[in-house]
Amino acid sequence: MLIRLDRNHSTPLYQQIIDEVKHHIDRGALDIGHSLPSSRKLAEILGVNRTTVNRAYEELQALGFLSSRPGSYHRVQKRRKEVAYDPDRASLIPWSEISSEPARQIHEMFLRYSPEQPRLASVPEDIINISRLDLDPRLFPMTEFKRCTGSVLAQSDADSLQYGDYRGFLPLRQLIAQRLRLHGIAASSEEILITNGAQQAIDLLCRIFVRPNTKVAIETPTYANILPLLKFVRAEMAEIPMTDEGMDLDCLDSALRRDTVSFVYTIPNFQNPTGITTSHEHRERLFTICAKHRVPIVEDGFEEDMKYFGKVPLPIKSIDESNIVIYLGTFSKALFPGLRIGWVTADRDCISRMTAVKRFSDLTSSQFVQMIMHEFIRQGYYDRQLKRLHRIFRKRMQLALAKMDACFPPEIAWTKPAGGYTIWVKLPAKLGEGRLHERMLQHGVIVSPGTYYFPHKKKSEYFRISISRLNESEIGEGLSRAGRALHQMVGGH
Amino acid sequence: MLIRLDRNHSTPLYQQIIDEVKHHIDRGALDIGHSLPSSRKLAEILGVNRTTVNRAYEELQALGFLSSRPGSYHRVQKRRKEVAYDPDRASLIPWSEISSEPARQIHEMFLRYSPEQPRLASVPEDIINISRLDLDPRLFPMTEFKRCTGSVLAQSDADSLQYGDYRGFLPLRQLIAQRLRLHGIAASSEEILITNGAQQAIDLLCRIFVRPNTKVAIETPTYANILPLLKFVRAEMAEIPMTDEGMDLDCLDSALRRDTVSFVYTIPNFQNPTGITTSHEHRERLFTICAKHRVPIVEDGFEEDMKYFGKVPLPIKSIDESNIVIYLGTFSKALFPGLRIGWVTADRDCISRMTAVKRFSDLTSSQFVQMIMHEFIRQGYYDRQLKRLHRIFRKRMQLALAKMDACFPPEIAWTKPAGGYTIWVKLPAKLGEGRLHERMLQHGVIVSPGTYYFPHKKKSEYFRISISRLNESEIGEGLSRAGRALHQMVGGH
Repeated sequence: MLIRLDRNHSTPLYQQIIDEVKHHIDRGALDIGHSLPSSRKLAEILGVNRTTVNRAYEELQALGFLSSRPGSYHRVQKRRKEVAYDPDRASLIPWSEISSEPARQIHEMFLRYSPEQPRLASVPEDIINISRLDLDPRLFPMTEFKRCTGSVLAQSDADSLQYGDYRGFLPLRQLIAQRLRLHGIAASSEEILITNGAQQAIDLLCRIFVRPNTKVAIETPTYANILPLLKFVRAEMAEIPMTDEGMDLDCLDSALRRDTVSFVYTIPNFQNPTGITTSHEHRERLFTICAKHRVPIVEDGFEEDMKYFGKVPLPIKSIDESNIVIYLGTFSKALFPGLRIGWVTADRDCISRMTAVKRFSDLTSSQFVQMIMHEFIRQGYYDRQLKRLHRIFRKRMQLALAKMDACFPPEIAWTKPAGGYTIWVKLPAKLGEGRLHERMLQHGVIVSPGTYYFPHKKKSEYFRISISRLNESEIGEGLSRAGRALHQMVGGH
Repeated sequence: MLIRLDRNHSTPLYQQIIDEVKHHIDRGALDIGHSLPSSRKLAEILGVNRTTVNRAYEELQALGFLSSRPGSYHRVQKRRKEVAYDPDRASLIPWSEISSEPARQIHEMFLRYSPEQPRLASVPEDIINISRLDLDPRLFPMTEFKRCTGSVLAQSDADSLQYGDYRGFLPLRQLIAQRLRLHGIAASSEEILITNGAQQAIDLLCRIFVRPNTKVAIETPTYANILPLLKFVRAEMAEIPMTDEGMDLDCLDSALRRDTVSFVYTIPNFQNPTGITTSHEHRERLFTICAKHRVPIVEDGFEEDMKYFGKVPLPIKSIDESNIVIYLGTFSKALFPGLRIGWVTADRDCISRMTAVKRFSDLTSSQFVQMIMHEFIRQGYYDRQLKRLHRIFRKRMQLALAKMDACFPPEIAWTKPAGGYTIWVKLPAKLGEGRLHERMLQHGVIVSPGTYYFPHKKKSEYFRISISRLNESEIGEGLSRAGRALHQMVGGH
């Protein structure tokens, strides 16, 4: 066996020995079972230090080219080859078969459910998407964000990049507690858990409180992204229909009387998707019913800060004398969703249980982005952003409603939101959702089909509009197009 | 009713009306059921615009001070008071009772299991903690991190702060795919999912692949933080004992013959907690056994990059011609754990299923921190950090092993890791773990008790040492102290 070493090369000698031996084995010059010389002997032959040869032999053993069994240390052995990349390589595992039934279902929902990224065949190039409920990125306060990140970097030491407190960065929790007081909610930082967006809080609640033979009461329609999670934990749902005033409380009362309910999920402000805001009386009655049955209320306040028309009641959590309300908040609807910061406030014991599951499922949330968010609020930028958004969306919502009045056929009805981003549109029953999506696409506009917001409906006579991502001219143009599509549908063309 | 307005005050007039009415109701000057004047009349009385009064009335209705029922718009009504903060306020909900059984258990584990933050009564002030497996923050490359964050900020537009791709930031996935090639793993960016640390990947796997009447095969001892997750999804465990060469493969073969196993979880390099690294032959045989039974291998490569002594075989994933290996990686053990970036690579179908559950459980990971990590690797800082860590930890591990040789009683045995951070120490059977923790504390040192790493053991004769957080002098002093404690225990004092 010929081993060539180049003493002037930057590759270390032991690595050169490894490479040479591998090369000889790979091209068949060294047979399986063949024994290499002892390290002492090879060191002599090559004129190198014995430790150099030893190191090479050790690595060759580790890589599987030499046997590592005692007594046959230098024997060349058969080694499984590294696998090259092959995009079409099949797997021996039937992944679907070995998935649990709910995991199979959530995967199917994932493949099917993509309101944000509809697959389009041939549609107009300048299509206007009025389906998405994320904030217009043109309204992100980038300058302030950069300034805050800069401050955090300037002050920060290694602590900011370590695992943080399981419940989240304490100064941020303190600021959130302070802000919650503006909404009539009295909570201490100990009663707050920071989550990766409000979505993670919903996931934690589903994982903890859904038990066999209990139901979860939801408004129908409701937030589309809670439905797959409920199905994933095999929750049965008690569907409480939405009326114009919010969920039907008589129906809720009967449901709580009839079934054991894990929790009631509600969005009292600018409900997603309907845009309906409940009255203070409705909130009081909902609270009283749940307290009577000792059932927790999960109050999703995801757009609490988007009260740009004024006149919105305080959260249910503000009258929660019995500590039954689990209140969810987020920064994703008025700021940067990509930072993934939400929170939940509830009774201490409930928070402790949520923290436990979060601690084992991802250890902690990113401390660095929490510090940036803390700085952002502390500098007053968050309040300034809210003022700006209020001014802008007050106008946009007024414009949208006026445009619908002007362009939509008289057979169509829709909600008049007191804030937030979404409007819920009802088609005449005879039309149904039918070819809605297709018709809208033909006219260059995308809306969000009503079926997304019901757990079981295959068809619905509703669709959702969101103005969160569009400026005034886009809203105007988008709704004109939707109006033309609707006129055509109503006219029966 | 007397309403006083101050036209020179900065508070808007409608808000002054609201405040005055609230004040009168709160002090009892306005009885429940009393009707306020019509808005036209009140506007006349106060000499303000009627829209001002209307706005005030609307908000008073929203806040619940005035009835919002048609026909009695101006009637004062009983309103539930906002609740003040009371740290001792009880909850009407029996949170433990309404939690599912596994949720109750994981909460108990959370309260009990806190190896990182042991509750100490009276211990020496300069206590040395050799239990924690997170990197010494003094070794975080802060300057480079700040520079990268700066670059990302300079280049970045609003896109970096939006919801990102469900699978993670594409350029980062591409870089990870490139790095994996260095470890013999051929994967495309399509086969990679970025997670919130490797922990989230483990959580996703447990949620997807654990089914009734199947088991999960784990090495015992194993990574402590997988155990609560397995219990949470009610997984039965097939415990495969660790030998000095890695998990007992005959035992695994029998287990796979006997039971339906969802997956086999293994840590081939510097196993946590034992520090054992398996040989190439062991990896081949493990792979062959699992392929034969068509059972996925979850290969946790959490310290893949910490091969500072060289001579470590390539990952099992490198010989995975059947696409049965799910490989987990992380940046948390050589860089900043607080950024929470890990990843998983596996067969496309498997990745799609994991992406589905991640998408509904937290939508996406923070895109901004992924961009920073991408920049960090791209600039070559990650490789430089690894070189630095290799140099440092080679010395630290050698020092630790030498110190144990010098200070530990001859009755004690321990592993000799080929890299990584942990050493597994075995006490003489007659001693058991007994009062180990207490004895160690008395001598000013904290180690990690062996019981943490077994699913059911109440007692174990092992403990784990980690050198990840300590410099050479701390390692020396910590192990001297541990040695004194052990001498005392062995001596029977």
